[in-house]
Amino acid sequence: MQFDLLTTDPASQARAGKLTTDHGVIETPIFMPVGTVASVKGVHQRELRQDINPDIILGNTYHLYLRPGTGTLQKAGGLHKFMNWERPILTDSGGFQVYSLSGRRKINEQGVKFKSHVDGSTHLFTPENVMEIQRQIGADIIMAFDECTPYPCDYRYAKRSMHMTHRWLDRCITHFEKTPALYGYEQALFPIIQGSTYKDLRTQSAEYIANSNAFGNAIGGLSVGEPAEEMYAMTEVVTAVLPEEKPRYLMGVGTPINILENIALGIDMFDCVMPTRNARNGMLFTAHGTINIKNLKWAEDFSPIDEMGITWVDTEYSKAYLRHLFKCHELLGMQIATIHNLGFYMWLVREARTQILAGTFVTWKEMMVKQMDKRL
Amino acid sequence: MQFDLLTTDPASQARAGKLTTDHGVIETPIFMPVGTVASVKGVHQRELRQDINPDIILGNTYHLYLRPGTGTLQKAGGLHKFMNWERPILTDSGGFQVYSLSGRRKINEQGVKFKSHVDGSTHLFTPENVMEIQRQIGADIIMAFDECTPYPCDYRYAKRSMHMTHRWLDRCITHFEKTPALYGYEQALFPIIQGSTYKDLRTQSAEYIANSNAFGNAIGGLSVGEPAEEMYAMTEVVTAVLPEEKPRYLMGVGTPINILENIALGIDMFDCVMPTRNARNGMLFTAHGTINIKNLKWAEDFSPIDEMGITWVDTEYSKAYLRHLFKCHELLGMQIATIHNLGFYMWLVREARTQILAGTFVTWKEMMVKQMDKRL
Ligand SMILES: [Zn+2]
Ligand SMILES: [Zn+2]
Repeated sequence: MQFDLLTTDPASQARAGKLTTDHGVIETPIFMPVGTVASVKGVHQRELRQDINPDIILGNTYHLYLRPGTGTLQKAGGLHKFMNWERPILTDSGGFQVYSLSGRRKINEQGVKFKSHVDGSTHLFTPENVMEIQRQIGADIIMAFDECTPYPCDYRYAKRSMHMTHRWLDRCITHFEKTPALYGYEQALFPIIQGSTYKDLRTQSAEYIANSNAFGNAIGGLSVGEPAEEMYAMTEVVTAVLPEEKPRYLMGVGTPINILENIALGIDMFDCVMPTRNARNGMLFTAHGTINIKNLKWAEDFSPIDEMGITWVDTEYSKAYLRHLFKCHELLGMQIATIHNLGFYMWLVREARTQILAGTFVTWKEMMVKQMDKRL
Repeated sequence: MQFDLLTTDPASQARAGKLTTDHGVIETPIFMPVGTVASVKGVHQRELRQDINPDIILGNTYHLYLRPGTGTLQKAGGLHKFMNWERPILTDSGGFQVYSLSGRRKINEQGVKFKSHVDGSTHLFTPENVMEIQRQIGADIIMAFDECTPYPCDYRYAKRSMHMTHRWLDRCITHFEKTPALYGYEQALFPIIQGSTYKDLRTQSAEYIANSNAFGNAIGGLSVGEPAEEMYAMTEVVTAVLPEEKPRYLMGVGTPINILENIALGIDMFDCVMPTRNARNGMLFTAHGTINIKNLKWAEDFSPIDEMGITWVDTEYSKAYLRHLFKCHELLGMQIATIHNLGFYMWLVREARTQILAGTFVTWKEMMVKQMDKRL
């Protein structure tokens, strides 16, 4: 695996890069659509490949571990083969998901004991077995096991938790190095910076994580309810510490505006359920603001969903038709909105990259942030 | 509109024909996928066009009347434009749907008063306003307003109801001829034969309907719970009466086996929710029998969904993957199964046509009926 930093914007920290994996090249900055349980909800792999065209998608270790289970995934030859997706995949470590199972999990130094949301059965995630599970799933980029703290978070808890995440990282690295890749291609482990919304903790964590000298570095524990300004402040603190020549992944972020602002702060990789989840609720992201397609105002608007026509759905269907589908709870409504939103997110990061390479990123970003901050 | 009967099978009543409409040619025998409320559930129009490739689809007057409503459809320029489907469409008359609203509807000579399943509001369908509604929807083939009797049905009720359906037909024809097509293309009205499972009533109704000298003729009130043998018996009685040179549409039928048997009895057109509804429950139709994809036996079967590869989903995804999607209630599972089933139904009627034209239909049909009558 290799990361080439192609350029850094002179007017911001924005970067354009190229991450080469055994499953192909990822042009950064990149957005990774979320395919929780081996499917980007409502989207055929053919549409993902040909129409949305992301360089990489994300899978969730917690969900894949429960269903179909690592036994089935191993027999299939790994997640790529199981779901028939030949481009790169990143898996999270399950840390965020088990943290979300409040009341159904117990965290201690050993790891996290939790009850499955599917059948209530009890399981244990440790830094060690999460490395093994991610070897069995077989993503190109895998994540260290961490504790994701809530927002707001008591300083003492945030500090204690951060140090445990650091100790867990050491255990992850040790175990990762002991276990071979199972499917003949390389897997890279990314460590995760924690420290809640405390600048000193974030700096300290960024230093610890940078010292682990991994192939790339991730920022976790953000986009958990804190104001955008606090998120940006933490990104800024952390990117000042992280090595320039390595990819930086901001986990779970965010709105189109969040993404552009964090690109400006030097982030290379993003993932978020927002474009897909909001799509299923009838919310569309566009270059000129957000649309709640269920609103009465679209009932007889026969204009295309999006004049920009980024994906074919934008001009194939009208706003009135899409609204009708949502009012009738038709599956096709969710399918159309999901393709639209993912298409828009991909356009946004591709266009950001073009602007960075052209040296015009900041002006473009300021214009886009203004334009997108509207409800249509 | 024109119907050309190309050939009749020497060994059965099976026919191959060509129905030419202003929206294109329909090669018969044909299966019409059901697009209840302006969407074939879970299928993009692009997939319908390019992958499933039916010559005609069906819409439901009852549902379209309630949502989006005829006002919106008229402003859109009709259903074809509203949903962006440029090939032929047939709409039912709402008779079957309001009949299904038991406890929420009252039938008398004037028509049917019913309460909307959406908001409980009260509406009236009459032979006259159903013609107007179908003019506004704008399907190429529209259906007369009828009463669909349940199974089993008391002889006296069936007889009384049949005569009312006949009187309603006269009112339909009178009103249809008074109202112009709204969108510049021709619409044809098909009358519907009723008479429950009584041979004398079916013969009488077929004679009445044939005498109306419509462009094509339909058989209603079957596939409502009667044994297949009774359905075939009624089809046989009726096709003996109906004119040869006009298309014959058997409404709401059926399984792949039902379709082949009724093609052998001289039916040209079919529609049914079975391939789409059963798909959403994980049931797949194949040339070698039906598959319940949720069964444990498929959990680690990594072979293609269907080796025949009729549509691209059949070879793009494995049985194990599709089962996983159903176990996780992923939307993509329903999408894949729907495309598979509709692709199979289209293959079945296309292949039937090829066999009829080649004079080999009966042998092929007997083999297929045997093959398909299995659970895999
Ligand atoms: Zn530490
Ligand atoms: Zn009569």
